[in-house]
Amino acid sequence: MMVFRILRANLSAGEFKEEVIRDDLLKLFLGGRGLGSYLALREVPRGVDPLDPSNKLYFFSGPLSGVATVSSSRLTVVGKSPLTLSITHSNMGGNSSYWLRRSGYDGLIVEGKAEEPVYIYIKDGEPSIRPAKHLWGKTTGSSTRQLLLENGFPPDETKAGIMVIGPAGENLVRFAGIRGSDYERFAGRGGLGSVMGSKMLKGVMAWGTRRLMDEVVDKGRFMKINNELVRRVTSHPTYQALHSYGTNVLMNIIQSMGGLPAYNFTGRAGDVTPVSGEMIKDKYVVETHGCYNCPIACTQMAAVKAGPFKVPGDKIKYEYENTWALGPNVGDLEPDAVLKLQKAANELGMDTISLGNTLATAVELARKGKLKLDVDWGDSATLIDLAYRIAHRDGIGDELAEGDYRLAIKYKDPESFIGSRGQGVPAYDPRGLKGFALAYYTANRGGDHLEAYTPTWEVFGVPEKVDPLDDSPSGVKKQASIVKWNQDLFAVVDSSVFCKFENLMPNINTENDLASLYNAAFGWNLNGSDVLEIGERIFNVERLFHVREGRWVRDELPSRMRQPIPEGPAKGHSASKMFDEGIRMYYELRGWIDGKPTRDTLKRLGLAEFDYIL
Amino acid sequence: MMVFRILRANLSAGEFKEEVIRDDLLKLFLGGRGLGSYLALREVPRGVDPLDPSNKLYFFSGPLSGVATVSSSRLTVVGKSPLTLSITHSNMGGNSSYWLRRSGYDGLIVEGKAEEPVYIYIKDGEPSIRPAKHLWGKTTGSSTRQLLLENGFPPDETKAGIMVIGPAGENLVRFAGIRGSDYERFAGRGGLGSVMGSKMLKGVMAWGTRRLMDEVVDKGRFMKINNELVRRVTSHPTYQALHSYGTNVLMNIIQSMGGLPAYNFTGRAGDVTPVSGEMIKDKYVVETHGCYNCPIACTQMAAVKAGPFKVPGDKIKYEYENTWALGPNVGDLEPDAVLKLQKAANELGMDTISLGNTLATAVELARKGKLKLDVDWGDSATLIDLAYRIAHRDGIGDELAEGDYRLAIKYKDPESFIGSRGQGVPAYDPRGLKGFALAYYTANRGGDHLEAYTPTWEVFGVPEKVDPLDDSPSGVKKQASIVKWNQDLFAVVDSSVFCKFENLMPNINTENDLASLYNAAFGWNLNGSDVLEIGERIFNVERLFHVREGRWVRDELPSRMRQPIPEGPAKGHSASKMFDEGIRMYYELRGWIDGKPTRDTLKRLGLAEFDYIL
Repeated sequence: MMVFRILRANLSAGEFKEEVIRDDLLKLFLGGRGLGSYLALREVPRGVDPLDPSNKLYFFSGPLSGVATVSSSRLTVVGKSPLTLSITHSNMGGNSSYWLRRSGYDGLIVEGKAEEPVYIYIKDGEPSIRPAKHLWGKTTGSSTRQLLLENGFPPDETKAGIMVIGPAGENLVRFAGIRGSDYERFAGRGGLGSVMGSKMLKGVMAWGTRRLMDEVVDKGRFMKINNELVRRVTSHPTYQALHSYGTNVLMNIIQSMGGLPAYNFTGRAGDVTPVSGEMIKDKYVVETHGCYNCPIACTQMAAVKAGPFKVPGDKIKYEYENTWALGPNVGDLEPDAVLKLQKAANELGMDTISLGNTLATAVELARKGKLKLDVDWGDSATLIDLAYRIAHRDGIGDELAEGDYRLAIKYKDPESFIGSRGQGVPAYDPRGLKGFALAYYTANRGGDHLEAYTPTWEVFGVPEKVDPLDDSPSGVKKQASIVKWNQDLFAVVDSSVFCKFENLMPNINTENDLASLYNAAFGWNLNGSDVLEIGERIFNVERLFHVREGRWVRDELPSRMRQPIPEGPAKGHSASKMFDEGIRMYYELRGWIDGKPTRDTLKRLGLAEFDYIL
Repeated sequence: MMVFRILRANLSAGEFKEEVIRDDLLKLFLGGRGLGSYLALREVPRGVDPLDPSNKLYFFSGPLSGVATVSSSRLTVVGKSPLTLSITHSNMGGNSSYWLRRSGYDGLIVEGKAEEPVYIYIKDGEPSIRPAKHLWGKTTGSSTRQLLLENGFPPDETKAGIMVIGPAGENLVRFAGIRGSDYERFAGRGGLGSVMGSKMLKGVMAWGTRRLMDEVVDKGRFMKINNELVRRVTSHPTYQALHSYGTNVLMNIIQSMGGLPAYNFTGRAGDVTPVSGEMIKDKYVVETHGCYNCPIACTQMAAVKAGPFKVPGDKIKYEYENTWALGPNVGDLEPDAVLKLQKAANELGMDTISLGNTLATAVELARKGKLKLDVDWGDSATLIDLAYRIAHRDGIGDELAEGDYRLAIKYKDPESFIGSRGQGVPAYDPRGLKGFALAYYTANRGGDHLEAYTPTWEVFGVPEKVDPLDDSPSGVKKQASIVKWNQDLFAVVDSSVFCKFENLMPNINTENDLASLYNAAFGWNLNGSDVLEIGERIFNVERLFHVREGRWVRDELPSRMRQPIPEGPAKGHSASKMFDEGIRMYYELRGWIDGKPTRDTLKRLGLAEFDYIL
């Protein structure tokens, strides 16, 4: 039997409450994204401004976080998003999840608003609210180091779990993120950093001595499954690619398939080799790293040691997504500049994808003469300058801090926003990798590649190869079922809380592996389809939040995705057919009508309590 | 008869009081620096922390500000300095002085501290304290533009007087400055921007319709003198040099004389042509400009339109002093980078000289292995990054924000601080231009070239040529008397408030011209020596402030200035002889003993009320 311990902090009252989530609720929603979304749907009042004190933040680990080995050390943050104005979830790796659990709590709920800047410090079951005025205005890196220092820890981020916001969160940038230890981990998407900012919460720090393994029911069986998973993962070639080059091993691959967007999805970048994982590994990476206890260790830390884009005295955690967003997407293929801009985003505390989307929209609007701004594609110095201005809402930065969606609407050019539900999309063109024509635009958190990751089939051929350009009736049917299945699975992964990399390995069957781990750990009795049903339940809870808010219920394809891709291997392809035909099949598979669950579906998933929302 | 109208704002109480300074006190101290220093000595409690609410700020125009034409539109700010911990004065051109007077007040005294960020708005005799929370954290340029916008002015800095601080002032950087309109004017030296920050005062804005000329007693005579001055100034070649190239016409000249310091006064820069006034005029200057009504119009506005150091969409007001401080002094001769760093300093709101001094000290300490910092001479990217960190007191920036003096002391390397009274010196090496061996180190505000400007003789030969390397007994005697005379004169110039450029023209006799203007304007009856006596009085009042604080009374030469200059035309020269022998003569001329006025001197100057300080 699993018990999930929650600390509820009310910053207005300056009080803490402890709560326990019982086994029966956990079996329905697990932790992380699932439990957070369920509680948010029950607790966060309808129609509330995300930056109002009555919004809440759920920092949740999952039942297996930091206990299982492979990919397990993640933490999900749930709340109402200032970017999408509906529910969002965003998760980070590193060690914040691990140390939060060791401090005695599996989850932290933050309510209300402090009068002055504060941080929450939890040491071995003893929580306190501490002044953070001296940290307000400071970058994420300085704040993290200062928290270690003033709490008596060595200058080593592995020694405690720390989550902080930077100037962007304090200044309520709609796409501000939350940085986690170690190093430069980010719950980036959805702007929950600015919800922290609105609550005057600079950070959360946790440390403790709770022994997580003591709570595992059948240790022998658990460790056997665990070790077997490690063996299977580390013996696979995808492990080697991620371990050696990190996520940016994708840059050359996706470009060669014609699926790498550039210039705000209006063109194709030339030779992207200078910003590819292989080249950056060779010229810039100085250190590799992993989340707590994870053998994949995909984290690449780069350094720009000289030149006009030097990043003095510090390393840069870089990934495929931010290299794309702040590189080809804004027409910049100069690796020094792209890394410098990534570093600026991390230190100022912004989601790199939405920052890139916003900059790309701004450049497009400027080139069209709609926005008065001295900027062009690849104009590195200006892009870096704008990052600073956005984080401080300084001058034109104040407009850009509203994000790509609002910028495009303001300047009456909606097609320059490429996303859904108010959030811009990441580094795959859904006209060249058509699974994303469904996966991006049905994602509950908006413009998202991590609620279902169709390149697993299209690029990695796992568990089988799917042609990314096939939008024949059978191709569409295949993708609709992949997306639904994958969304359900990943909802569970985000609630456990795991990362998604083990799912990339063909010798892994994630739903069955998760079932086995849960059963061994807590004496449960799940099978793979039970796991998928939990995921489906979670996905429906999030959609119910949209229904209740009366926002983003219908899924929509942005207009640019209906135009043919202009050049490259996917030239002439659009996302229209996949989306228009696929969405009908998808709704049928989900038991939804027009993006909305039916009463029967809710009943089937044990969600009848939310009938009133329909 | 002149009446000087003062507005006294108490930010703690949220109240204003109007006061009038009568003719007899004005005849002793004029306005600006003189009146400010006199009131500060009477009103600011001894030993007070400059960042305590009981420190006061005096924003004072002078009786002739904005009425006389040539050089007259300046405003002096006086207060206790967070950098020197004693009295300082700092003045700006532009139009703040003019608009403050037209709003109905010749001076503004700010006392106390607001609870939340505010700005003071004065519209035609009606002052108000207004919320400025929305401006806090914003750069000086954005804040200025926002104040125009929200008060219904067109986006044109000439239309109102605006003085603001940037992030550096808010974050109490010890050398934060105050930016004035139009454009990028700075009361930079002495860190009074952080005194504004400590009072939560983001800015002061003034506009009005008072007609200054109506208060002139003999308009005909006044205008005749005025017009004659304009004719004499504009017919002189120095006018043409300043008008065409601005102050940075000095770069090549001073370098060719061997008097341009580099690498924190440890070496000599190579070819400084790339950062010279002539070259920057040719390649970067896009606009020239003047202070209100001044025909000299020396302001050069540059633009860096492309490349890694592009300054997007904005112009940079650049001068000789900041080009040196952020160029050769930190080993950087790349003009794009030097201009970008100047712009950063202006927007973040820092004194460019002290920023350059501090960066130079930091580089020296880093090279010596005393300070752990990844930086070297000419490392543009890092220097720019540090400017941001200093302004936000972020990480290492928190240490550097304390300034060069405190940094050198902290790392037990006092010789890496090149200044006096806690403030670093500007762009002339007193070993190659030896007048500064006395002028810098006797300056009341510390490390200063504007209390007496000896290059007038040494470089311009006005009124006669003095050999800058001559420290023979007669040379020393000559410089001691020049410095004393010039300090007295410039104390009057800073109290009128004029700039010092007209004094560079050999057909001008500033003390007589000032006497004539005052007599015509207010029916006074001054001659040139009366004017100089006013200046001497003011200079002694400032010195009394040091005596009262028990700080910086004795003048001292920094140890590096006793070492020979390493290369160039002044190779082998040191400042020791000029200082050691000159200071004795100088004290004698002043009627001082060991840097301290005697009772007789005070009596002679009508300052007997301050006898108690001695």
